[in-house]
This record gives sequence, structure tokens and C-alpha cells, in this order.
Amino acid sequence: MADDPPATEVLRAIGVPTLGDYLDGDFGEIRQGVREQLARPEFAAVDPEIKSSEYRQRVFDWSKILADEGQTNLGLPTAYGGGGNIGGSIAAFETLAFGDLSLLVKTGVQYGLWGGAILHLGTEKHHEEYLAGIAALELPGCFAMSESGHGSDVQAVGTTATYDIQNEEWVIDTPTEADRKDWIGNAAVHGRAAAVFAQLIVAGTNHGVHAFVVPIRDKRGKPLDGVRIEDCGHKLGLNGVDNGRLYFDSVRIPRLNLLDRYGSVSAAGVYSSPIKSATGRFFTMVGTLVQGRVSVGGAGVSVSKVALTIAIKHGDRRRQFGPPGGGEEVKLLDYRAHQLRLLPLLARTYALHFKQEELVKELDAVFSGTETDQHARRSLESSAAGVKAFATWHAIECIQTGREACGGLGYLSSTGFAARKADAEIFATFEGDNTVLLQLVAKSLLTGYREEFGDLNPIGMAGFIASQVIGRFVERSAARELWGRIWDEITPDSEEDGDLKKRNYQLALFAWREDHVLSGVARRLKSGIDDGYDPFVVFNACQDHVLAAARSHIETQILEAFSRGVDDCEDGNSKAMLDRTCDLYALSVIDEHRAWYQEHGRISSTRAKAVTRNLNTLCEELRPHAVDLADAWRVPDCVLPEFGPDGIVG
Amino acid sequence: MADDPPATEVLRAIGVPTLGDYLDGDFGEIRQGVREQLARPEFAAVDPEIKSSEYRQRVFDWSKILADEGQTNLGLPTAYGGGGNIGGSIAAFETLAFGDLSLLVKTGVQYGLWGGAILHLGTEKHHEEYLAGIAALELPGCFAMSESGHGSDVQAVGTTATYDIQNEEWVIDTPTEADRKDWIGNAAVHGRAAAVFAQLIVAGTNHGVHAFVVPIRDKRGKPLDGVRIEDCGHKLGLNGVDNGRLYFDSVRIPRLNLLDRYGSVSAAGVYSSPIKSATGRFFTMVGTLVQGRVSVGGAGVSVSKVALTIAIKHGDRRRQFGPPGGGEEVKLLDYRAHQLRLLPLLARTYALHFKQEELVKELDAVFSGTETDQHARRSLESSAAGVKAFATWHAIECIQTGREACGGLGYLSSTGFAARKADAEIFATFEGDNTVLLQLVAKSLLTGYREEFGDLNPIGMAGFIASQVIGRFVERSAARELWGRIWDEITPDSEEDGDLKKRNYQLALFAWREDHVLSGVARRLKSGIDDGYDPFVVFNACQDHVLAAARSHIETQILEAFSRGVDDCEDGNSKAMLDRTCDLYALSVIDEHRAWYQEHGRISSTRAKAVTRNLNTLCEELRPHAVDLADAWRVPDCVLPEFGPDGIVG
Repeated sequence: MADDPPATEVLRAIGVPTLGDYLDGDFGEIRQGVREQLARPEFAAVDPEIKSSEYRQRVFDWSKILADEGQTNLGLPTAYGGGGNIGGSIAAFETLAFGDLSLLVKTGVQYGLWGGAILHLGTEKHHEEYLAGIAALELPGCFAMSESGHGSDVQAVGTTATYDIQNEEWVIDTPTEADRKDWIGNAAVHGRAAAVFAQLIVAGTNHGVHAFVVPIRDKRGKPLDGVRIEDCGHKLGLNGVDNGRLYFDSVRIPRLNLLDRYGSVSAAGVYSSPIKSATGRFFTMVGTLVQGRVSVGGAGVSVSKVALTIAIKHGDRRRQFGPPGGGEEVKLLDYRAHQLRLLPLLARTYALHFKQEELVKELDAVFSGTETDQHARRSLESSAAGVKAFATWHAIECIQTGREACGGLGYLSSTGFAARKADAEIFATFEGDNTVLLQLVAKSLLTGYREEFGDLNPIGMAGFIASQVIGRFVERSAARELWGRIWDEITPDSEEDGDLKKRNYQLALFAWREDHVLSGVARRLKSGIDDGYDPFVVFNACQDHVLAAARSHIETQILEAFSRGVDDCEDGNSKAMLDRTCDLYALSVIDEHRAWYQEHGRISSTRAKAVTRNLNTLCEELRPHAVDLADAWRVPDCVLPEFGPDGIVG
Repeated sequence: MADDPPATEVLRAIGVPTLGDYLDGDFGEIRQGVREQLARPEFAAVDPEIKSSEYRQRVFDWSKILADEGQTNLGLPTAYGGGGNIGGSIAAFETLAFGDLSLLVKTGVQYGLWGGAILHLGTEKHHEEYLAGIAALELPGCFAMSESGHGSDVQAVGTTATYDIQNEEWVIDTPTEADRKDWIGNAAVHGRAAAVFAQLIVAGTNHGVHAFVVPIRDKRGKPLDGVRIEDCGHKLGLNGVDNGRLYFDSVRIPRLNLLDRYGSVSAAGVYSSPIKSATGRFFTMVGTLVQGRVSVGGAGVSVSKVALTIAIKHGDRRRQFGPPGGGEEVKLLDYRAHQLRLLPLLARTYALHFKQEELVKELDAVFSGTETDQHARRSLESSAAGVKAFATWHAIECIQTGREACGGLGYLSSTGFAARKADAEIFATFEGDNTVLLQLVAKSLLTGYREEFGDLNPIGMAGFIASQVIGRFVERSAARELWGRIWDEITPDSEEDGDLKKRNYQLALFAWREDHVLSGVARRLKSGIDDGYDPFVVFNACQDHVLAAARSHIETQILEAFSRGVDDCEDGNSKAMLDRTCDLYALSVIDEHRAWYQEHGRISSTRAKAVTRNLNTLCEELRPHAVDLADAWRVPDCVLPEFGPDGIVG
């Protein structure tokens, strides 16, 4: 068509195994092992009409197989018989996310959360006592943090642990109904103990939230004295996981059951901690659980891959509407509207894949101790929060769009959208509500990563931030000096044809937006406080601006990671294909923010229209390669529906 | 804050019963009756672990109660013992959509589709023979249109009905596996007969698709000879509905079983029809089924009301995060981000409510015969398609956002999101895939409603349209002459503070966009064809533009309806509240299209920022009234979760 920009070099078909190997990365063998495991008959998908009670048992049995085969201690230290491979354990978890998500969450609770609490918050005595039993699933346990009254604001939990100096014991209590532990995985049926987060009180002084090992059931499964357990009941999804509620009535545990890495109490009742501030201490403890967020984000990416693989393969075969008077009908994926629905999601999945890969490496470095810089740790925590939010919302969108793109066939339980739609839904909420996580990201940006991560109380946030803002932007500008020259080049005057596909131009547009939104919100916060407004009113008036700052930052991070992923690829055809896919990701984000770029004089109205036009041509270019790009993700056939010559076999 | 525009007059609290009565409209008594019925113990929600087989029976029993109590013949002609109240029957259906959606769909299939096919496609003999039994649920039946190979392109179905002149019978056949009838409600268990859509063939001539009454089971439920029935199996939702597949192998039915309102065959095998063109005939037949789309759209609006009522009531009570150092925590709905997620959806639900009300009245007028103009009929068909697409996507969004806004509590099956999320999902696909419906809308706009509605073959569309375009825009401009002066006023130069809340300005912005997008796509189609490109290539290159044309039209229609709804309200406080809510709807749509308005020089970048700012202040103004606005929808308590002082009781 006359309006279209000139075509760039024609893409050549990729070697799917070559790109697949590149995507599998360092942990290819581990990933392949999990794929093979998923294909074993005993791991076949459950009947969708299975009763929850039976489903929970099946999931427990599955977990036991994994434990018996030694797959569940990959991330544990070698000193306790583990594999000492944190990155590999996340890769395994991500791959497991192709399959049943109740199994995924159950293992996440047992080995990641319960095991993680012991590993990261406990000390050697706890490691010696519990880790082997946890890895072997001989000691199923819970991570009892959330309460009915406090899901997001976990620093304000109501459960108390009061030190009884006479008996050298902790007394655990649930003061009111709102303080019951809620949504606790493994609690309703299988858990025998729990890492309970409670306000630590010694001689009337509250030292803030700490974690305690509290036995909750005997070996025969009967709740112990003083422990009341309720079943959360039937859920929208994940009914293979036994979520429950825990109430404690003067439950006594030994003094040494305090997980005391960041705070301990002597027999005589003297509290000590390597971290002075109670808030700082709490958020250091919560920070150790970053692994959970990285894992859930990775699972979100995997679920997106499954949903899109199904929809793309179907769209590549299913035909509807033919030329008037007969003749072969047109494949769904040859319709531009269908391409525009699926291919930008495919590109974004690639983008998130590369960002997730980097995050796993950072996590590995920080937790294996090769990276000890505090700034790196804060940056990891912030990235993990942001990518978790983006990847899980993205998964929900891919499932929704994928389902619709498969029409009625997408509605059959056998096709695979049904269970994933129900199960992955809560990914947006657990391990941190996505909106709350974006606020965390914004806060860490505004404070230059100098503050404890996690304290996102919006009411205190505004005033706090105002005092930090100046230094932050000095630091920031230094780090981004490189951009200076590029920014000068992206004024509307210098627009040239083809620029839109230059990576540096894209990166500059992303970074410019990030910087501008962030400094804008900083100015608004500061001036509101300076004008004497109530900090909550100040914060609230620009909360959407705060969230936009977080989003723009994460989007930039993701593009930068994708860009490095393209650069590092050594195979020519794969590299060219990734490059074009990266263009599609970049332009789809710029397209979303076309209004903003025009409002801020960064792109002209002419160029804004060119963005939309380029999205169209990129879809056209990538369409012949869409199936290859999906195949390179290596979603195993065992979790896909059967495809016939006309698409999904119903 | 300094940036905010000056506040307008303060909103006073509404009388919820007053606004509620206004919203209930002409059919208040009927709606109230259904609300009371839903509250009866026998209609209590099913256990989420119910087996499909049991669920299907429960839904059948519920339908039988409705039939026995005479509720199912409200829309049937009085001549056959019905209530002759088409509008009232839709109002009842909409209200039933507050409850179990399997029951809703089951009644839709039996009374709307199967009954509707007999009523609208049959003639007196068919009415006499079947209607009473259908209303009494003595003759459960199916609407067998969709096939595995043809879901959207139903004009191309493969099932054949061949006339056997010797025996004066039709022979019904399923030539290939792809031609089996698929997704047919009532087919797997309860249906005894079906309205089967098949290619009518007499003496080797195909006269196009017609509907035939085909018995499929005997009174004991056994499939009849030559009829093979399969169960579609477990679905993502709506498992109380027995969807099945039908295969016909030389099934013989009497000649008079052809539903012959639009085409009949004499005993001697002579075909005749009041409509000459086979395509025109087919789409007239399909057009009679507009009632199904209006009903599904209305159900979408109701489901949105349920989801938002839950989330808004919860957000008005649930607190999270307090001032540093203690003090009362903040209600979720007092956070701006929470308001921005929920209140524009509330406003859009109001907007759709008023549009839906108008649609029901148009439908009533057309189908009761008080409106006989063909243009009105085409316009109704187009509006029904557009509103169905918008309302059902909106429902999916409200459920998703509402669930997230309730956090973990939204994930409990008892809260009510679970079943609705699963069930309403397919609303985007059945009764016409939403994307396909938008194409229909665009086509009817481009042809000025002169063509048969429904023939959306994209490959034929472009060339066809090109020849029509000129006349269309002459006609259009005449009809909108009124706008002329206003358009002149909405150049960026004339921007004044406060304009954004002037209804005429909003309407002009919407209409200008509609007109501009539509003429733009018409030009592109025409020039593509004139340049000699293949019609499919032409169509495909601007398919996103085609869909944007449809969207802009529907958005304008909805705003116009909301605006009339505000004007017609006689209660002062309600009117002011609706007026402000209408502003929120209008500005949220303008905000979505800020990029476009800037690209086309219709609003300045300064004004674009003001749109976003006004969205914020409108949310702030409406927040204290959000619960009242939801309460006025009168979602019955029996379908809501229990609310305690802290929100949903989990």
C-alpha cells in the first residue's frame, strides 16, 4: 500500500533448535529434564472434575516424587546435601510452570517459602534441624505471613510472640479474628510446622516482626494443642493447593525456634540484632524472599508461552472465510487483526524472557554471595517486584487473548486455557499485589535504592521522598550521562524515516520517558509537601503518576535486557529475527504511550502515526515466522492440545 | 494541589431508591419479580465442586420451575398464550443474569434460540405445533447453526438438506467431520429436537442455508436413527449447560419441517422465496436472531454490575496501610489508584446500561411491528452487534479488575467472581465473535446500512465497499449537519477551561473522531481497490483501521444514549450525579484516544494533559457516592458475598 514504509531486509527462517538452545541458556539440561518429567504418564493433567480433596492428594504425591528423585534440593546449599544451584532451581521452577500450576505452587510453598524462610532467616542450628526434612518432603510446612487483616501491609501483622523468660519459651497468640494467618499454603491438610511471622515482644517491648518455627500438627495430622486450623475452602483456581487459616492460642515453642539470623533473644531475654532499625530489619527479612517473586515472574513468562503457543499454532492452521464464490479460506493468522492481537504479545513474551533470564542471574549472584554490594541487592529486589507484576499481568492477558483467539475451542477444558486462566489469576495478587509492587518500584527509584526495600506505606512515603529527591537525580543523571547526546537527537525536528527501528532511538525514547515521568512525580511530591499539604493527600493526588513512573522504568529495563539478548546472540538468522521481534516489542510500547510522547513534545503527530503503521508492517513481516518463534520456547507437547490440519482437535 | 482544575458544584447524595426506579425503567415490576425469584432457596448457587452431570440436571430443573410458573413465555405472541412483551422478556433475561449463568444460557437456548427460530423463521403451522411445548419445556430443543469447521462464517456451513421428491421428505446429512454441528446447547443431554441450519438442495440446486426442524431424541432420551450425538465435554465454565455435537446420516424429515418464512419448497420441488438473493435471504434469517445478541449484551451489563458492586462495597470498607506510628488505616477506595481502576468502569457500566435500554426498546418496536422501516432494522442489527461486543468485553474487564481489587478474597469461590469469570468468558465468542461483530458494524457504517447485515466476508468486503463509499458520506453528512457548527468550535485554538465537561463538546469530539476514522478507512479501501490491489490485501492492510471505525461509532452511540439518559432524569440530585458520571465516561474514552486526537490536531498537548487531570478529579468527586451508584443497580443481596465492617467476610 502507498502508505507503508519501505520494507527492510527480508527475514530468513530461523533454525528452531538453534534459537531454542540460545533461549534455554545456561540451564538447558535442567530445563530439558523437567520437560521430560512433565511428559511422564504419572504427571498427566488431572480430570477437570476432580474433587479438591483428591486433587490436593495428587499434588502432594507429585511433590513427593520430585523429592524422592532429588529434584527439590537443587537450590539448597551443598553443605546440607543440596545442589547449591540457585539459578538452576529457578530454571527448573520456570519449566515446571508449563504444567500443573497447583503442583508448581505447592512446591513453591514447600521448598521456596517454607524452606526459604529456614534457609534465609534461620541460622545453622535451624538448617541442620530442618533443611533435609524439607527437601525430602518429610516435614511439610507453611509460610505463615499474610493475615486476614493484613495482606499487603505485612509489617502490621497482629500475631504476637511474647517471650516467657521463666520457661525460656515463646508464646504465640492470635489476638483477634483479623489476625488469623490466612491463605497459608500447606496449612489446610499437609503442613506439620509453619514459619510464623509475629511481633516479637520481650518484657513489654515490641521489636517488630520476626519469624518463628511453630509446629502445627502431629505426625498423624492432628492439630496440636492451641492451634486451630480452618480450610480456606474452594477457590477460583489452584484447588490442588490446601490453603488454610491458622489461629494460635498461647502456643508455646522453645526460645531457639526464633529464626534468628537478623534478630535474636538470649535466654535472659536480651534482644540483639545486626540491624538497628526495626523497619530496616523487617525489610531485610522480607528482602530475602525476593526469590519467590523472581520465581512467580518466571512462571508468568512460562504460562504466557503456553497460551501463545496454543493460539499461534491454531491461528496458523484454522481457516475462516474464503473468497466470494469459493476457493480456499484464509488462515486466522493471516488476518492483520489476529496478528495485531497475538504478535505484540509474542514479542513482549520474548522481552520478558530475556529480562527474567538476567534477573535469575542477578539473584544467583546475590544469594550465592558472589555479589555483595547492597545497591545490587536493592536493585534486584526492585527489579524482581517490577518484573513479577509485569510478567503476571502479561500472563493473564496472554491467556485471555489466546483463549479468545481460539474461539469456542479455547473454551474446552482439554485445550488448556481453562485451568491456566483460573490458576494464574492469583499470580497478580500473591507474593505481593501487583499495584503495591509497582509502588515499591517507584519508591526505590525515587530514593535511589538507598532505603529499605518494601516499606511502601504511602502515607509516610511522600514526605520521606521529598527530602531525598535532589540527591537522587544527581546520581541518576551521572549514571545516564551516556544518554545525553542521544536525547538531544530525539527532538521531533530530527525525525527521519527508519529511525523508529533504530535500537538506540528506541532506547532513548524509553529512557527519556522514564526520566521525565520520574522527575515530574518527584517535583509534584516535593512541591506538595513544601506547600504544607498532608503527605497522604500529596501522595494520593499523584498516585497514578507514581505508578506510571514505575511502569516506565520497568519497560525500559525490559527493553534493555531484550536488546542485550539480541546483541549476545551469535547465530545470524536468529539474531535478525530477535532484532525484528525486539522492534515489535519496542514499538508496541511506544505505541501505547503515543499520547504521552506527543504531550511532551518528544514525537510529532506525523511520527506517532508512523509508529502505528510500523506495528502493522512488523506484524506482517513476522507472521511467517510466528510458529517458529513459538516453537523455540519449547513448550512440551504433553501440555499442548492435539493439533490437526485445521487447528486444535476438539 | 496547584495543578488541579477548579472544582465544580459539589455533588449531593442521591436517593438510591429514586435512581434505582429510574434505572429499572419501564420493566421495573418484571425485574423485581426476577430478583425475588433469585432469592428463593431453591435457586441458591450450586456447590463449586458439583459434577457437571448433576449441575446440568439442576439447571434443567430450574428451567422447568420457570416454565411451570409461566415466566418463559413472556416474549411469545399472545396468540400462542404468551405475554407478547418482547422488551419485558429481555428485561427478565438481563435480571436473571445476576444469578447462575448456566441457567441464563440454558433458558437463552431453549426460549430464545430454539423458540426464536420457530417463531421467527417458521410460519403458523410451526408456531401451532411447537411454541406451547417449548414455553412449557415439554419440548427441549437446540439451535444447531455452528459447525466445527464454520463458527463465524455460518453462511458456509456444510450440513445439507436434500429434497427427496418421491417421499416429500428432506434428507439431512453431515458430509464430513468438519460439518458436524458443534457447541450446540441442549444437545448433549436434554434436547429432543433441533433447528438445524443446512444448505437447502432441490434437484441439484443449492438455495443457500435454511433452518429445518429435526427430531434428535425419542421421549426416553435415546438418539434417533441416523443421529449421532457427542458431548463437547468439560468446559472452562457454563458446565451446567449440556453442549454437544450432532452428526446426521441420511436423517429423513417431512417436507413441512422446513422453517419456511423466508423460503419454501412445494411438494413438487419448486423453491420460492420473498427474497431474491440467496445472501440477502440468509442474512435476513440471521437478522431475526438479533434478539440473542441484545440479550447477551444485556447479560454482560448485568454481570459487570455484580462484579463492580462487590469490588466497590469491599473497597469502601477494607482498610490497608495507616499513618506511620499508628492510627486508623486508609480505605482501599480512598486510594486514587483504586478509584481510577474501578470508577471509570462504573461510569462505563452506566453508559452501557442506558444504551442497552434503548436497544431493548428498538428491538421491541421492530419485532412487535410498530417499527417497520428497513433502515431502522439494519441500524438495530448493527447496534446490537456493537453493544454485544462492547458489553461482553466490558464484563470480562470488570470481573478481572474487580477480582484483583478484592485481592485474595476475590479468589474465594464464595465471593462470586470465580463462576462469573469462567462463565462470562465465552460471551465474547458466542452469538458472534466480538472482533467479527465489530467488522459487521464497520461494514454497515461504510455501506450506510443499505446492504444485508451479516455478510462480513472480508475478502469481498473491500471491493464492494469502494463502490458505495461516496453515496454513503453524502448521506451521512446530511444527517449530521447539526454537528457542523460544533466541529468548527473544537479546534485547539478555542480550548477553554471547563469545556471538557460540556456535553456538547464531548459529543462533538466523539462524533468528529467517528466521522474522521470512518472516512479515512473508506478512502484507504477505495484507493487500494482503485490502484488494482487484491481486495483481501486491501482489506487486510487496514483491518485495524476498520475495527477502529466500528469502535469509534459504538462509543459515540453509547455516549449519546447516556446523555439522553441524563437529560430524561427528572430527579435533581440523580440527574446531577448521572451528569458527572457521564463526564467520567466521556473523559475516560477521550483519555484512551488522547494520542489520536493529538495526531489529528483536534486537541492540543496541553488539553490532552487536562483530560488526564480531570479524570483524577472526577474520581475524587464521585468516590463518596460510589456505593450509592452501585446500590442503585439493585444487584440482589442473594448473589453478593457477605460484607462485614472490614469488607468481604472470607
